[in-house]
Amino acid sequence: MEKIDLLVSAPHFFTMKGDGVGYCPNSAMAVDRGKILAIGPREEILNLYRANRTIDAEGQAVLPGFIDAHMHMTLCGLRGLAQDTGYWMMYGLAPFSHQMDEATGIMGAQLAVAEAVRAGTTTFGEFGRRPDLLIPFFEKVGVRTQITVTIREAVDRIYNPGELYEFDPARGERMLDACLDIFTRFNGAAEGRITVLFGPQGPDFVSRELLLRIQELARERKAKIHMHTQQGDRETAQMMMRYDKRPIAWLDEINYLDENLIAVHLTDADDHEAQLVARRGAAMTLCSGSIGIIDGVVPPAKAFQEAGGMVALGSDQAPGNNNHNMINEMKLTALFNKIRYQDPEVMPAWRVLRMATIEGARALGLDKRIGSLEADKQADFILVDLRRPSLAPIYTEPMRNIVPNLVYSGRGDEVSLVVVDGRIIYENGRLIHLDESEVVSAVQAAAERLGPKAAEEFWEVNGTNARFMKEGKL
Amino acid sequence: MEKIDLLVSAPHFFTMKGDGVGYCPNSAMAVDRGKILAIGPREEILNLYRANRTIDAEGQAVLPGFIDAHMHMTLCGLRGLAQDTGYWMMYGLAPFSHQMDEATGIMGAQLAVAEAVRAGTTTFGEFGRRPDLLIPFFEKVGVRTQITVTIREAVDRIYNPGELYEFDPARGERMLDACLDIFTRFNGAAEGRITVLFGPQGPDFVSRELLLRIQELARERKAKIHMHTQQGDRETAQMMMRYDKRPIAWLDEINYLDENLIAVHLTDADDHEAQLVARRGAAMTLCSGSIGIIDGVVPPAKAFQEAGGMVALGSDQAPGNNNHNMINEMKLTALFNKIRYQDPEVMPAWRVLRMATIEGARALGLDKRIGSLEADKQADFILVDLRRPSLAPIYTEPMRNIVPNLVYSGRGDEVSLVVVDGRIIYENGRLIHLDESEVVSAVQAAAERLGPKAAEEFWEVNGTNARFMKEGKL
Repeated sequence: MEKIDLLVSAPHFFTMKGDGVGYCPNSAMAVDRGKILAIGPREEILNLYRANRTIDAEGQAVLPGFIDAHMHMTLCGLRGLAQDTGYWMMYGLAPFSHQMDEATGIMGAQLAVAEAVRAGTTTFGEFGRRPDLLIPFFEKVGVRTQITVTIREAVDRIYNPGELYEFDPARGERMLDACLDIFTRFNGAAEGRITVLFGPQGPDFVSRELLLRIQELARERKAKIHMHTQQGDRETAQMMMRYDKRPIAWLDEINYLDENLIAVHLTDADDHEAQLVARRGAAMTLCSGSIGIIDGVVPPAKAFQEAGGMVALGSDQAPGNNNHNMINEMKLTALFNKIRYQDPEVMPAWRVLRMATIEGARALGLDKRIGSLEADKQADFILVDLRRPSLAPIYTEPMRNIVPNLVYSGRGDEVSLVVVDGRIIYENGRLIHLDESEVVSAVQAAAERLGPKAAEEFWEVNGTNARFMKEGKL
Repeated sequence: MEKIDLLVSAPHFFTMKGDGVGYCPNSAMAVDRGKILAIGPREEILNLYRANRTIDAEGQAVLPGFIDAHMHMTLCGLRGLAQDTGYWMMYGLAPFSHQMDEATGIMGAQLAVAEAVRAGTTTFGEFGRRPDLLIPFFEKVGVRTQITVTIREAVDRIYNPGELYEFDPARGERMLDACLDIFTRFNGAAEGRITVLFGPQGPDFVSRELLLRIQELARERKAKIHMHTQQGDRETAQMMMRYDKRPIAWLDEINYLDENLIAVHLTDADDHEAQLVARRGAAMTLCSGSIGIIDGVVPPAKAFQEAGGMVALGSDQAPGNNNHNMINEMKLTALFNKIRYQDPEVMPAWRVLRMATIEGARALGLDKRIGSLEADKQADFILVDLRRPSLAPIYTEPMRNIVPNLVYSGRGDEVSLVVVDGRIIYENGRLIHLDESEVVSAVQAAAERLGPKAAEEFWEVNGTNARFMKEGKL
């Protein structure tokens, strides 16, 4: 019998097949050349295959790896600098982000990956101006990525309230060219582990003409558009000034709401607007932690789902949300929605687990390859140790509490193994292809250089955290 | 020079002195016979003392241990069985809690302690009928506890909507006697690590007469009363039926709202009611995770604090909240309140850290002994490793991001050392006086016995989770 790469057997598999969590007890999974060959009853699979490595995951659960659909990983070196403040970007982030350079961004992304893999993320949806610069690192560590290249026509400068963004068509063209170039070079690369999306930054940042060109070019390439959409009052104010329409209404008018669009945030959208986006076939990415902490808002994902839309989850960025931990993101999604609707039945644990796996994969157009554990899909999966005090005890009769325990009690450190494309990238508390302490040291050194340079603007802006510092509150 | 027990030096101390976080860089703390002797500049303290053990906590922060003010630890063996359902207690918990026995409760409490210590809890506020049964275990593990003995006059049976609870005065007397007995035997025991509170279960469960007797007996003993107060519509309905008053208004009428009362939950209280409780001098315990998940409600802690009241945090119980992790509790408190008020400036990180330490200690009447790191207080403290990917990088200039990182990004596993009364109870990932895997195995075995016994009622009640099981959603 020819040997395959990997066999995993465990008492609990959550395959996410069907419309629930696709639970299979006492099963085994055969993996070869990056793909799942078969999943089935333990004895049957173990009799059929011999593998170079066989993992008997006693006391553990097997799940698809988590999909983090929307991240700005390069900001991870600015963790914790912009919370507890109104006008997050201006009063919190700006003094620090103004001092960022490319090298600090790359180090930050490495930290984000180290953190996120430890909590089970296997697919990383990075949104940024030069996500291609991160690709060598992604390849080295072995994660799956869906990168979005920012296209922005608005000039970067400080705008007064009531002032319309100034568009620079030449800039928009340059950024579109860069996006096309990155798409051509990397979409489908690394055995398909890399996909590339078109990223107009938002309907307020790009002119109608350029938005429509992006749409046409993306369609030709069968690529999706990933765009911040109705992400807050600043965007809505710009759109009202420029077009006398709210963002979603205007996007509908130009036929931008379709199955090619992944609309991120919808912070400012009401239920009807969210439902319109869903009915038009677009997907939504929900960043619960980030929008909760930055804006105190719970976006209308429930309404979006009720209209038939697919919702993915994203951890956004560390200076806002403060972390890249998909278990945290699932939990906050469930709890925030219960609070928004004052109803404990809203967004049950299994639903948010689907959003972090198969529903997320559908939203991003990746469900042919990932999101569930099924024969012929890529072998992206994690093991979760259910014997950790935070997840114990396990009931299987009369109900299984494994999914609620993972979502509502998981911290992240219960993830014991992470596999992408059949290759183990994390095991026994260590990333296989990354020296974490080296990454932490490098980011720390960068922070110690960046902080003093940000000081002048930090004190001048005099935001909430500056006041807290003066008062000894931090 | 005589040797003291312990010296700890670290780059970051958060003493919680003053009205912020009492930050002291590059400091050391001298500990002897359970108490803090001195905290000061590192070199100064290290020159003054020699110790049997000296810890140089490079890259770490020292904080007071966390105070979990309100727990039902004995339910920890029922983790994850009652989420995502309306009428939590009836449709979720009842089929399982009806099968609980004393031994399972004690095992559950052991699991809760193992879980909570790992995330930095040093003081455990257990509320239950026989918390004295847990004392040998608390003593063995070395944690500090404040136990509350339940006093309930209402007969335990199922009541129809609109039906007034039936009081059994003899039962009330028996439970009060048990409380007095436990108070006499244990209050101040274990070198002061144990305190005992009087626990009328709620104004709906105990008659006016008995409530007033409890008040008198508690006052004579300088003990506080710890009571579920306006914890939801069931309680309010009972009080309206019996007295034609909402709970807080009625408690004010009988002069129950005073500095002796710790009012738990206030789920159902509006801002004015909460402020009345605070103005009368009572304290509040806020269980953000539990009330959020069970009721979809954010209790009025902000209003309570604005009226001058002290608020402690509690993790409540694992079948509801699902975990006993105070970092989680701090985070949810901050985020839920930002959402309730749609204002990111509400409940900043440093504020919730104070609630888990010094403000919590004040609320519980324990601030003479614990809650901050100051000379003459008991040495209850934790070390947090700031080099973990989830907490890195650290900025000290122009702002310190350590507290936001801990609150918004901490998972729990960054806690590297836990000390109570100067004795190390957790180090290097292990509880010193507890075999965790033994505890997990025992609770797991109990769960496997309990589950099948609960099956009949579980399917009969046919709650949300029963439906989810039938549909393959769990």
